[in-house]
Amino acid sequence: MLFTTCKENLEEKLNTVARIVPTRSTTPILENIVIRVLNGTISILANNSEIYMQTTITAMALEDGEVAVNGKLFSELIRKLPANEEITIKTDKKQLNIQAGKSKVSLLYMDTKTYPEPPSVEKKDSITFTVAGKLFRKALQNTIYAAKKTGDNTAFSSMNLVIEKDKDNLYLCSLDGHRIAKNYIQLNRSKKECSKECNIIIPINTCQELLKTRFEEMEFIVTKNHITLCSGNFMMISSLIAGQYFDTSKIGIDNSLCVQVRRQTLEDSISRSLVLLNEKTPLRIHIEQGEMVLSYYSNNGKLNESIEIMIDDAKKTLEIGFNPVFLLDALKATEEDTVNLNFKNATSPCIIQNDTALHIVMPVALKCEAA
Amino acid sequence: MLFTTCKENLEEKLNTVARIVPTRSTTPILENIVIRVLNGTISILANNSEIYMQTTITAMALEDGEVAVNGKLFSELIRKLPANEEITIKTDKKQLNIQAGKSKVSLLYMDTKTYPEPPSVEKKDSITFTVAGKLFRKALQNTIYAAKKTGDNTAFSSMNLVIEKDKDNLYLCSLDGHRIAKNYIQLNRSKKECSKECNIIIPINTCQELLKTRFEEMEFIVTKNHITLCSGNFMMISSLIAGQYFDTSKIGIDNSLCVQVRRQTLEDSISRSLVLLNEKTPLRIHIEQGEMVLSYYSNNGKLNESIEIMIDDAKKTLEIGFNPVFLLDALKATEEDTVNLNFKNATSPCIIQNDTALHIVMPVALKCEAA
Repeated sequence: MLFTTCKENLEEKLNTVARIVPTRSTTPILENIVIRVLNGTISILANNSEIYMQTTITAMALEDGEVAVNGKLFSELIRKLPANEEITIKTDKKQLNIQAGKSKVSLLYMDTKTYPEPPSVEKKDSITFTVAGKLFRKALQNTIYAAKKTGDNTAFSSMNLVIEKDKDNLYLCSLDGHRIAKNYIQLNRSKKECSKECNIIIPINTCQELLKTRFEEMEFIVTKNHITLCSGNFMMISSLIAGQYFDTSKIGIDNSLCVQVRRQTLEDSISRSLVLLNEKTPLRIHIEQGEMVLSYYSNNGKLNESIEIMIDDAKKTLEIGFNPVFLLDALKATEEDTVNLNFKNATSPCIIQNDTALHIVMPVALKCEAA
Repeated sequence: MLFTTCKENLEEKLNTVARIVPTRSTTPILENIVIRVLNGTISILANNSEIYMQTTITAMALEDGEVAVNGKLFSELIRKLPANEEITIKTDKKQLNIQAGKSKVSLLYMDTKTYPEPPSVEKKDSITFTVAGKLFRKALQNTIYAAKKTGDNTAFSSMNLVIEKDKDNLYLCSLDGHRIAKNYIQLNRSKKECSKECNIIIPINTCQELLKTRFEEMEFIVTKNHITLCSGNFMMISSLIAGQYFDTSKIGIDNSLCVQVRRQTLEDSISRSLVLLNEKTPLRIHIEQGEMVLSYYSNNGKLNESIEIMIDDAKKTLEIGFNPVFLLDALKATEEDTVNLNFKNATSPCIIQNDTALHIVMPVALKCEAA
């Protein structure tokens, strides 16, 4: 194998692909990336058994071949090579030789025979859709917070990605038993799209990788057990999680008590209560006579703040408790300056809704104590 | 106790003082700061048993008193209060009440009776000196790297601060058995200074606190067991470490082989070898025929780089090994673009010296292997 390339291009592609390579794996071959020169095309592949990535680099291919080389070492080394130098990469019998100017570095390589094959994607019954990258990442960011952070790959530790045919929309949804986040985005209709419906569960690690991408347009192909992202020469395949997710489409919004509040003011108040956070004391919200009072008690001290609100009927009253962290997360994922908090009673959730998102936070029982 | 102040002033002073408060301490009272209102002056005190700090804030004192309140909680809370609001701080029988606009927060406070007294500083035989803050911090930064990072408060885990009378200089020195760093700075002679000599050992935690200060001029008072830093209303007292430090004043510089090299080039080469770092393989430097070749071998791979040098006599040769991390640290603490590396032989240290600093790195034995 022999090729020459410029540092910047190689470094950029490695940043994307080598990121998923585990530092320590029970299958040591997975700590490697594969560099492949075939018919003038130079590709870099990585596989961490959940996600597979592949990209090509702009380079001058001089001799075919492929090697597996430690992903972290190789990308760290390329990053530290002198800038603006041409890099020559060449294999001999034992080593991968990297030369840039007066720097010569050799790394041991492994045979690619034992490197796992990319997942075989069954093209039958595939569903294809395209979204604007920026829009997708923003919606994903504002949804992912509600996903369970445990990391066990069961249905509820993960994000749910739903496409509904009739509205040409993509629904991103996550929940952890205490809260639900749901965001809608319009599909990109410029390309010929498949209009079939699908309902898949994507592992949270894949979602986090998707957040790190920088593509303007993202084309997804959903097959039976995999989701594939294609963009130019880049391809990423992730396994899906089997199972049925909670059906969030039938959630009814009861807005018998609707309160309008400046988001930043409420966020600031809640973040002050978090300073006192201790044990599992709930944040108490009291609405009466057109006024909203937040109060919080813990071993560390107490907090009491009145917040300006707009309410449809000043006679309505409510006393309700929340986990302040969950309420703050939901507010932060809302992008408007003014938000509507919809309540029903002390045992029903707080619902924040707008044209493109829905955030639901379950209340916490309040003890009958007062300060 | 009752006073009003603006958020920004209080926050700034808390940032300095509350930093040294431990989050968890076996003496729980030390997790507190003391707020004291006395004769119209409002002071904040902190004490972590090694360092004592005291500062005053600009505020309107309305009622004398003093309380001990959790340092982390209080400063975090003040930080999160609404900006540009006047803060009223008032004690009742049980609580410290903080009010800013519509925010009311109460924290539990403790009696200050059990709070440790500031160290009693024996003024007799004190030595006073003043240095420019920026100069002092830069010299400290370029010295501290060589101090042992173990944290046990013995003489060699710490920084050594020497004043020599004859030259009106301050010498900062640290060493860890493998390397020595020494920086000289001129004392500020604008104030009446004591010209006595002293030789003290300052704990590394105190050095790190000194690095974080932002004072233009720093006045130090050295007494038998303490060093005191005064600047305006701010005062910091640190205990000193008993013991005699290694006498670095008698180190002779043998420059029988002097090599001039571009610092950045050498730093880049060494940092590439660090990518391959594994076990305790030394970095090999080979000088022959007016050329310097760096090479490094490990389980991960090997590196070979030739570096341009200026040498007085091209006939001189040397083969010497170093811990690459230690050599890199010494180079980074040197501020010139071109550095002189002084060698004697393979068992003598590499010495980097200029007008204000001295860095010594001990070599490592090389095995007779070659690649």
